[in-house]
Amino acid sequence: MVTLTTDFGSQDPFVGIMKGVILGICPRARLVDLVHELPPQDVLAGCLALESAAPFFPPGTVHLAVVDPGVGTDRPAVAVATKAAWFVAPDNGLLSFLDPAEIREVRRIENPALWLHPVSSTFHGRDVFAPVAAHLAAGAEPDLIGPQADSIHRLPFPQPRPTPEGVAGQVLVFDRFGNAVTNLRRHHGPGRRVRVAGREIPLVRTYAEVEPREALALWGSTDRLEISVREGSAREVLGLTRGTPVLLVP
Amino acid sequence: MVTLTTDFGSQDPFVGIMKGVILGICPRARLVDLVHELPPQDVLAGCLALESAAPFFPPGTVHLAVVDPGVGTDRPAVAVATKAAWFVAPDNGLLSFLDPAEIREVRRIENPALWLHPVSSTFHGRDVFAPVAAHLAAGAEPDLIGPQADSIHRLPFPQPRPTPEGVAGQVLVFDRFGNAVTNLRRHHGPGRRVRVAGREIPLVRTYAEVEPREALALWGSTDRLEISVREGSAREVLGLTRGTPVLLVP
Amino acid sequence: MVTLTTDFGSQDPFVGIMKGVILGICPRARLVDLVHELPPQDVLAGCLALESAAPFFPPGTVHLAVVDPGVGTDRPAVAVATKAAWFVAPDNGLLSFLDPAEIREVRRIENPALWLHPVSSTFHGRDVFAPVAAHLAAGAEPDLIGPQADSIHRLPFPQPRPTPEGVAGQVLVFDRFGNAVTNLRRHHGPGRRVRVAGREIPLVRTYAEVEPREALALWGSTDRLEISVREGSAREVLGLTRGTPVLLVP
Repeated sequence: MVTLTTDFGSQDPFVGIMKGVILGICPRARLVDLVHELPPQDVLAGCLALESAAPFFPPGTVHLAVVDPGVGTDRPAVAVATKAAWFVAPDNGLLSFLDPAEIREVRRIENPALWLHPVSSTFHGRDVFAPVAAHLAAGAEPDLIGPQADSIHRLPFPQPRPTPEGVAGQVLVFDRFGNAVTNLRRHHGPGRRVRVAGREIPLVRTYAEVEPREALALWGSTDRLEISVREGSAREVLGLTRGTPVLLVP
Repeated sequence: MVTLTTDFGSQDPFVGIMKGVILGICPRARLVDLVHELPPQDVLAGCLALESAAPFFPPGTVHLAVVDPGVGTDRPAVAVATKAAWFVAPDNGLLSFLDPAEIREVRRIENPALWLHPVSSTFHGRDVFAPVAAHLAAGAEPDLIGPQADSIHRLPFPQPRPTPEGVAGQVLVFDRFGNAVTNLRRHHGPGRRVRVAGREIPLVRTYAEVEPREALALWGSTDRLEISVREGSAREVLGLTRGTPVLLVP
Repeated sequence: MVTLTTDFGSQDPFVGIMKGVILGICPRARLVDLVHELPPQDVLAGCLALESAAPFFPPGTVHLAVVDPGVGTDRPAVAVATKAAWFVAPDNGLLSFLDPAEIREVRRIENPALWLHPVSSTFHGRDVFAPVAAHLAAGAEPDLIGPQADSIHRLPFPQPRPTPEGVAGQVLVFDRFGNAVTNLRRHHGPGRRVRVAGREIPLVRTYAEVEPREALALWGSTDRLEISVREGSAREVLGLTRGTPVLLVP
């Protein structure tokens, strides 16, 4: 199984082209789209998408991710093995969510024998990442990919910090419904209320505990604190943006 | 085969996550996306999408549909068998299009042994509906899902009614091209003209029977009356909204 | 393998319905979406999408393409074989990118025995094109499709022309990132600079050769000259539209 995560959108055939390349190399691959409408070049959003999705795929899955503002430069690229899966991506922080303790092996993608040639300077998803993911899905030995490396690049993730009033975090991304996903996780709790955008809102278990159009916070489906408006968009109603401070009050 | 119909959009990995769950349980499932860009929480739009698509799938298909404003509450969920297929969905009207005479069996989704745990309060698509659909696709016995029920919840669908001037109906939804789909069906005809938005327009067989930018009505691909503008958007040009009255004139 | 290219968008189940039809006829087909968010009825954009994608699919692939402003009229439809693939489409220029020297066989789609009945007047993708593509994928003999034809309809593609100052071309389409794809191809070069929208910009090998927010030109992943802005949208920053003149200066 190979999953695909990109910022390529759906108005161009870029993703379909990558699938053609993968199926040319590994005809039996099962392909699953994770998300392609990431905000262009938003490495953090790609990282969070992978974090939320990867645990739900069967062992042996290859996760191919391309959010690549540095395409065509000599930024490195990596294939990373955990116990459960391979991750193939530019080494720009897209895999920051991986716990170092879970990583079994990091390979630099440096063996051009696996790639499509000539390698374009704008579409390594097609010429480099798709072929490498396909070869892994087909059972290639990891040392074919390139030499081992010690570690991967990690984004300077904003970390929650304790304050006298509660744990201070911030908004990271929004989903389609305008729910705000934060960097506060369940282990930062417990909490009873949340201060955000000049309001204090309740921390509840389900949307239905507040009235329609009212704001609430809850532990979302990936155990991150989310800010929502019932039957509305928290992003719009509360005027949130990435980085908006969020305080978890005990 | 398992089809997926949701309002989850394409900017988040929600749909991909459901696919991971399904393939973990039923690795041989063929997955087909019906639509994921339904207007958020628009149960009627989801119902009409399923109605138009289900007849074109092979016997034995499992149709998984999640448009679920009540997620996390104790709204019931169901699996419904017809001669041709299974439908798995919240019991909120999403399956209203099913003819009662075609339903062979209704099961309440109540057996937590099939679900992912802990069950989140915001993403039953992942934790409840995807596993149930996958088990059905894998051949599970229906009584594993939960107890039988007599009926499903049905939306109060607006019904056309005869008037001295013709059959009066209304606009239900719009497609990408701005065509308006109505609740008037071919058996409400015959008709020669249609009154809508202060105009009287011809009922034709193909777009090409009127000039570009002119309005027309025709029996669409699901035998519902549609209001269109040739090479334009009827929604914009005629200023239509859901509920706009439409009169089919004999 | 069957690929799908349409302007049906993702807010309706049209594409999913076509897949149901294909899998009903050819259950073993591998389905790959190329693009469905083409601008409505934009035959040129569909043509360029196919051109960029088709070379990356394995031999024997069936490419199904439906951008069909003339649906329901008697515009012809064709199935075209090259050495590598079949292409199934309305005969309206969508296949203009095919080199006449590469075409092995053109069949008019005229045998209603392969179609779904009754044939709607608005959704030949479901009733005509999907069944024909599925039968080809399942190994049907080409003469089942319809009689042979000599040629296909071709768009009056704007051709670059030499001028005293350089080769004069124009913008054809834009991708998601706002990059402008032109009708200038690598064989029209070499070039060192490009004049567009009142500016002269460098022709470089990678985005990183200019500063963020600066304009550049490069040979894109399909060997067409592209106009870009690093970490920005050339379409917006430079005010480009389809047809904007582009001069490749040696």
